Amino acid sequence: MPARKPTPQTPDEAGVSETLARYVVESRLADIPDDVKHEARRALLNYVGCAIGGAGEEGVEIAMRVIGPFSGERTSAVLGRRERLDPLNASLINGLSSHYHDYDDTTPKNYSHTTSPVASALFAYASANAVSGQDLFEAFILGFEAASRVGNSVYPGHYDTGWHITGTIGVIGAAVAIGRLRGLPLRNMIWAIGTATTQSAGLREQFGSMGKPFHPGRSAQSGYLAALLAEQGFTSGNYPIESPRGFAAVLSPSHDFSKITDGLGVDFDLRENTYKPYASGIVIHPTIDACSQIRAAHGLDLTDVESVQLTVAPIVLDLCNKKFIATGLEGKFSVYHAAAIGLVRGQGRLGEFTDETVNDPEIRRIRESTHAERDASLEDDAVIVEVRRKSGEPIRLSLDHALGNIHRPLSDAQLEDKFRDQARQHLTDGQIDDLIGLCWQVDTLDRAGRIAEAAVPKG
Amino acid sequence: MPARKPTPQTPDEAGVSETLARYVVESRLADIPDDVKHEARRALLNYVGCAIGGAGEEGVEIAMRVIGPFSGERTSAVLGRRERLDPLNASLINGLSSHYHDYDDTTPKNYSHTTSPVASALFAYASANAVSGQDLFEAFILGFEAASRVGNSVYPGHYDTGWHITGTIGVIGAAVAIGRLRGLPLRNMIWAIGTATTQSAGLREQFGSMGKPFHPGRSAQSGYLAALLAEQGFTSGNYPIESPRGFAAVLSPSHDFSKITDGLGVDFDLRENTYKPYASGIVIHPTIDACSQIRAAHGLDLTDVESVQLTVAPIVLDLCNKKFIATGLEGKFSVYHAAAIGLVRGQGRLGEFTDETVNDPEIRRIRESTHAERDASLEDDAVIVEVRRKSGEPIRLSLDHALGNIHRPLSDAQLEDKFRDQARQHLTDGQIDDLIGLCWQVDTLDRAGRIAEAAVPKG
Repeated sequence: MPARKPTPQTPDEAGVSETLARYVVESRLADIPDDVKHEARRALLNYVGCAIGGAGEEGVEIAMRVIGPFSGERTSAVLGRRERLDPLNASLINGLSSHYHDYDDTTPKNYSHTTSPVASALFAYASANAVSGQDLFEAFILGFEAASRVGNSVYPGHYDTGWHITGTIGVIGAAVAIGRLRGLPLRNMIWAIGTATTQSAGLREQFGSMGKPFHPGRSAQSGYLAALLAEQGFTSGNYPIESPRGFAAVLSPSHDFSKITDGLGVDFDLRENTYKPYASGIVIHPTIDACSQIRAAHGLDLTDVESVQLTVAPIVLDLCNKKFIATGLEGKFSVYHAAAIGLVRGQGRLGEFTDETVNDPEIRRIRESTHAERDASLEDDAVIVEVRRKSGEPIRLSLDHALGNIHRPLSDAQLEDKFRDQARQHLTDGQIDDLIGLCWQVDTLDRAGRIAEAAVPKG
Repeated sequence: MPARKPTPQTPDEAGVSETLARYVVESRLADIPDDVKHEARRALLNYVGCAIGGAGEEGVEIAMRVIGPFSGERTSAVLGRRERLDPLNASLINGLSSHYHDYDDTTPKNYSHTTSPVASALFAYASANAVSGQDLFEAFILGFEAASRVGNSVYPGHYDTGWHITGTIGVIGAAVAIGRLRGLPLRNMIWAIGTATTQSAGLREQFGSMGKPFHPGRSAQSGYLAALLAEQGFTSGNYPIESPRGFAAVLSPSHDFSKITDGLGVDFDLRENTYKPYASGIVIHPTIDACSQIRAAHGLDLTDVESVQLTVAPIVLDLCNKKFIATGLEGKFSVYHAAAIGLVRGQGRLGEFTDETVNDPEIRRIRESTHAERDASLEDDAVIVEVRRKSGEPIRLSLDHALGNIHRPLSDAQLEDKFRDQARQHLTDGQIDDLIGLCWQVDTLDRAGRIAEAAVPKG
């Protein structure tokens, strides 16, 4: 591993920011492959559902209460909420709500939730300004790609250091996306990236607190501001990513800039994006999935279940080994609860992680009859489940990859189901149908802001 | 030097944030020594002058143009400007203008300009809310102390890594100061510090661009927001400074937490604060000072000056070795220009670093007749000047410390002169007299916001 102290840039490294900025400025939507475009639609659909799903949570309520009185002209809708805000503040709330349940998309290459900061700025902007669906769509793809590539260049050292990568690279993605919508020329796009990097922040110490979802929110807002400042000539350093005192050298013990500059316009990280089917810690997803499959295949009589035996990768018990629990939040990190909701309900949505569900007598009985042992030969995404029955032979299922893994992506229909489940909290079924339709057609809309407006609860 | 990867906190380290927060919450102004209070008044006077001095500069104009349309209710005055803004946005502009000329105070223990982010938030707050001078004064001393101590704990590794420490610790100082004004209890003060640390940012790559003064501006605003969020129950990690994924471990290769916790309430970093007499890079201050002394002592006839020979520390020529220059900005980093303005004008204020002054024929002749050589035996703050005359013996002066150094602090009267020189750009002499009076009496004012209002240009 390179020494901590950054070494001066070599000539090969100079120009990384300019190369990235040039791609972003010159790219044309027509040159982006269709499979990438479809994945972008899926990312945006999932994003909007997650933003609505988190919009009523405590941290969002607090932030609205605090920020509301400072809002400028309320030209922007806030996803899933009735209040309007100025677009800079709306982008903060959109980011906070969309990451609140940690239920948004993940790019396993660098473990960032890149859509949240980028789309949060874009929908706030599009609600307050005349922007076509096509322009927003293109800006999203480019902002996502720019941020994710910067993330790849410093992953994993950057993450291991303690940075919440969603916050640190998200601000770059938001600046690029808004900068693209504003049509920034090359020099100004570099400054936008520069003023973004110099606001790059977010510590993993915040995990488990409201500070975690605050990161994409503040990143969306800071990146948006960076683009507007750069547009008007507010200068920054000219080598913001690659300089010896720039983003990569300061925020990571090592970096590989070829991951930013190689294959631009050919390789797209959106292809590697994944979507969570379950609103819980990711390491218990295989257990929820396997138990749901057993329930579906065997029409299980729950009173016949004597005990459940899980064999899991070691990380699962390191992180989620709590059996006797009382709150929904604890349920998100209990592999025993995962088995119970899979067998009893066949799903793991927001409703499976409420205090009420955790204290449901039947769920509780199955949970407390579940046992788990670690097997170091299992991959993190694998599980073996054995359901022992009073009436006969045990049912056994061995799973290599959980639903939602890059090898078993959620289908479009499953993404819609997830969307419905979250949106139902705040929208009517008719509104949900309309909104899902708008998201799938985002790149054909005359006005992208229609999505943000349609995500506002009525009445 | 410790390995880059943070090790888990030891029991001794846990509680650093709580110890600091407890001091801030429980401290009483009556327990703060008088010499510290006087230094706080000096810091605030100098700060207000610098904010007015920078208020008309290009980067401030751009930021006002960008931010203005997003302002909420315009309840806050902006130092040195006619427009009003909501207090969060006002704090950003105050920070930007007060650090714009790099003319604000410096704490040589950690090279941070701590007053700018802390006071920028406070004057914005005090302009929009009923706050007594005493409360603002106390909050300033505590915010300054908290930020500077956190800076000491990670200096110099943090700075050497490439962080602009004014930005990274300033956000903590602003959060503490506003949190104190809002009367946050201990738990919420820890969260305020937490939500500040997770916005901690600012890269040295920005030096030489508008990004540098942007750092204290954004820090002031982010810290202010952190305090308001924490007040309403927005949670953060509970060990924001000392956790293995917290501020110190993530943003510095090494740290010493005793520099935060030892001597709280007894030792104050305000005692080590310094004020620049010259609006230039600090390494050419000795040359300006020595040449000004020669001018004053010898009633120099400039036409008699044949040449000037400087002997300087190596760093001076590493950073400021440009003789043939055309702009004021270049003049700030030319040791030859430093000699010329000292001999011709006996000062180095904003007016000595304009394009016009740099191109003045007499200044130019002296500048281009000046030569410099390095001497590794000289301290950075020392210089030897020899003025060679046509008419007779050379004049020689050897200086160990420049004016403004901690060993030769500016007097109160000199601070007032510096204030007048800057404020004259935007305020009348009568206004300046009133404002200087208010600053010296800050801790007795019924309403601290009177200072911000008095710093607004009239007519």
